[in-house]
Amino acid sequence: MTNLDTALAYLREHADEHMAGLDEFLRIPSVSADPQRRGDVRRAAQWIAEELTRIGAEHATITDTSSHPIVTADWLHAGPEAPTAIVYCHYDVQPVDPLDEWVRPPFEPRYEDDIVYARGSGDDKGQLFMHLKAAEAWLKGVGSLPLNLRFFFEGDEEHEAEPSETFVKTHPELLAGDLCIVSDSDMQDDEGTPAITYGLRGLAYWEVKVFGPFQDLHSGQYGGGVDNPANVLARMVASLTDERGRVTVPGFYDRVRELTPEEHADYAAVPFDEADWAERIKVTGPMYGEPGSTLLERLSARPTFDINGLWGGYSGEGSKTIIPAFAGAKISSRLVPDQDHREIEQLLVEHLQRVAPPTVRVEVKVIQGGQPVVTPLDHPALVIAAHALEETFGKPPVFHRSGGSIPVVAAMEQELGLPCIMVGFASPNGNFHAPNEWMPLANYRGGMDALLRLWQELGAASPADLRAR
Amino acid sequence: MTNLDTALAYLREHADEHMAGLDEFLRIPSVSADPQRRGDVRRAAQWIAEELTRIGAEHATITDTSSHPIVTADWLHAGPEAPTAIVYCHYDVQPVDPLDEWVRPPFEPRYEDDIVYARGSGDDKGQLFMHLKAAEAWLKGVGSLPLNLRFFFEGDEEHEAEPSETFVKTHPELLAGDLCIVSDSDMQDDEGTPAITYGLRGLAYWEVKVFGPFQDLHSGQYGGGVDNPANVLARMVASLTDERGRVTVPGFYDRVRELTPEEHADYAAVPFDEADWAERIKVTGPMYGEPGSTLLERLSARPTFDINGLWGGYSGEGSKTIIPAFAGAKISSRLVPDQDHREIEQLLVEHLQRVAPPTVRVEVKVIQGGQPVVTPLDHPALVIAAHALEETFGKPPVFHRSGGSIPVVAAMEQELGLPCIMVGFASPNGNFHAPNEWMPLANYRGGMDALLRLWQELGAASPADLRAR
Repeated sequence: MTNLDTALAYLREHADEHMAGLDEFLRIPSVSADPQRRGDVRRAAQWIAEELTRIGAEHATITDTSSHPIVTADWLHAGPEAPTAIVYCHYDVQPVDPLDEWVRPPFEPRYEDDIVYARGSGDDKGQLFMHLKAAEAWLKGVGSLPLNLRFFFEGDEEHEAEPSETFVKTHPELLAGDLCIVSDSDMQDDEGTPAITYGLRGLAYWEVKVFGPFQDLHSGQYGGGVDNPANVLARMVASLTDERGRVTVPGFYDRVRELTPEEHADYAAVPFDEADWAERIKVTGPMYGEPGSTLLERLSARPTFDINGLWGGYSGEGSKTIIPAFAGAKISSRLVPDQDHREIEQLLVEHLQRVAPPTVRVEVKVIQGGQPVVTPLDHPALVIAAHALEETFGKPPVFHRSGGSIPVVAAMEQELGLPCIMVGFASPNGNFHAPNEWMPLANYRGGMDALLRLWQELGAASPADLRAR
Repeated sequence: MTNLDTALAYLREHADEHMAGLDEFLRIPSVSADPQRRGDVRRAAQWIAEELTRIGAEHATITDTSSHPIVTADWLHAGPEAPTAIVYCHYDVQPVDPLDEWVRPPFEPRYEDDIVYARGSGDDKGQLFMHLKAAEAWLKGVGSLPLNLRFFFEGDEEHEAEPSETFVKTHPELLAGDLCIVSDSDMQDDEGTPAITYGLRGLAYWEVKVFGPFQDLHSGQYGGGVDNPANVLARMVASLTDERGRVTVPGFYDRVRELTPEEHADYAAVPFDEADWAERIKVTGPMYGEPGSTLLERLSARPTFDINGLWGGYSGEGSKTIIPAFAGAKISSRLVPDQDHREIEQLLVEHLQRVAPPTVRVEVKVIQGGQPVVTPLDHPALVIAAHALEETFGKPPVFHRSGGSIPVVAAMEQELGLPCIMVGFASPNGNFHAPNEWMPLANYRGGMDALLRLWQELGAASPADLRAR
């Protein structure tokens, strides 16, 4: 029996115990954006640190940041000939509203048809937990890991990029290694086709606030004489895009790297049923998006603009005839190489300030940002990962870019020179950031097997080869 | 001692007792737009009906409608030679949010510097109460009224026009008379200058809902492929006006009766300090509004468009990267003669449906509507009211049009042929529809004196003269 077989057997033997652990972990409501959940986020960090120590990782440490803590630990006894991998996941989760659309409360996991439903089940606590259990299988089952590992788990991925980006810059010694393994992405489909993500979109996120009169005013007494912050806000944010979703701010597309003919061909080769996709999210009517790109390209290789939230004035029953004193919006753009989030952030701030009328006071604040990244397709770590996934799932992985953003991945690439491979196991339909988030338990089991194999194969590779970018 | 002197003296003698009654009435949270306050609204109606009976009015009746009840009563013993006046006020109040901006809870009256602060103190429970006490002064102090009175108090003025409009059509026998006296407006200023309102703007009020995907979606996974209901909503409502607040929907201004040179001159003659007005509501920057009209004209003689509320997606702390499943807006227009609210309602519904993209589902619903009205300035009832006010306050009243809307006044004019005089006593700065609504107690005392005198003088007039329109 090989070491890998021993580790695989360990997972089978401890499956029930592990499921209980997952359930316990998912019950901690680690919503990073909610100040009231501050203690719960810390509790999740402590839970992970204790678990890391229990399974045999060393130096488990909780480091405070300007926001939520970062958990690190290592196991560096595979020797200098073996590569060192940084494992990155995040233990914070998205807010849960609208709460009334959840079949069960978001932090009371529901199990049905070999699926777990809970906030964080896929994004990303479930995947973080898989790394913990894979490490346990090697350390407890075999007695050692086939490579050196450093764990890097953050609690602000859904909240703000600054804490983990700063951590990457200020604690390079805790993240020294040859490559980074990130699990915060999806499988290709729900039929067991694995996927490797070789690119991520960046993100720029703003809050726009428009202040008018000192309080809500009677629209009969004051209407016609006072500019209305909600009218202004609607006009300002509407001015940012056209009807097809193309951003109309001059300069926005200047640094967008257009896809090559080969990349267009790659995208076209991905099996993808547009009608089925639209049906799943109950979108009817013609396909939406800027002309000149396919739907799949628009979802990951083109930048976007979305209003994420709008509020102001009266939204209760019936009517209230007021000029609201205030209106606000959360807005964001997904970015693609070679856009720079700082440049785009500044571009929109300046544009919005320019179009703001003098009759109101406008505040535009950058809330979150991260760079887009792309890893070369022929990188040896990607080749190894593809092999490990194919061995486990019986089919080769699909390589694609993700439409999402992980700013810390960009930071690890740029600050530490680490190539990052993104191997994720969530369902592409798993309701990330939405009610009734779910994760197939088959993905969870297969994913852990794949991680055991991935570590084994990476362990046999040359650190210098992996480190190359 | 004349009867009028006796009635005036009665008010002085019972001032403390009356203040206690006002306090009790203001404590009933009769918010008509809030379904949870249904019982409280009815309680306010019952309170009024009992009070009417107690002071000697007859046939006090609570009539159910499709929404909140209407309270009627009469006293018809002044004889056929005396005119019959319908007294109209409303006992419902506006919602109270934002609640945290109230110095004291809205239904716990606060008294300070001869001012009462409470929701409804000015709009309109305080003014309704003044009519009750004026009637009491005549009936209890003198033993009779100098004219026939019918009381008509509704509970949906801040909510929807349909119940009272229907009541006007279906119960003409309860509203038979020669003229209508409405107290739901302001004095000219806070220095005791009375005012008579001879025109009201109409109102059209809509709710727009935009539905996109079946639930909130991750903006990274889906951004670029799914139209965003909040983007669409912002664009749709922004398309209705230009930067100066002029409505851009074709046909909107077709029936607007332009002011004559005489009317422009009347407006220009009203003492009005624009800078002081702007300072009071803490509006800075250049004056806002469509070109070609003065501020005072825009506030009452020009139509408007306002977004009254916007909601959808995430509005909590930090960021949430979603494409919201839904976004909504409450929007409304103030209308002027000869615009027809039904025509304008239809115009905007059709416009919004026309500009709605096929990628989302749009619902536009009319929530409230009422016609604009204007009464001829030389109407004998207006002349009498002016005299009664000047005798009471020592200065002639200013005649003006109000920017607000009272749909039921339009219905009484159009359905019953009743000329309506609008004599109100609230402060023009009294925070109607806003936190910390207030009413000067001096206006309350002076207003009741003026009502006693007004009824006396109307009682001496010929019913036929008053009935003429």
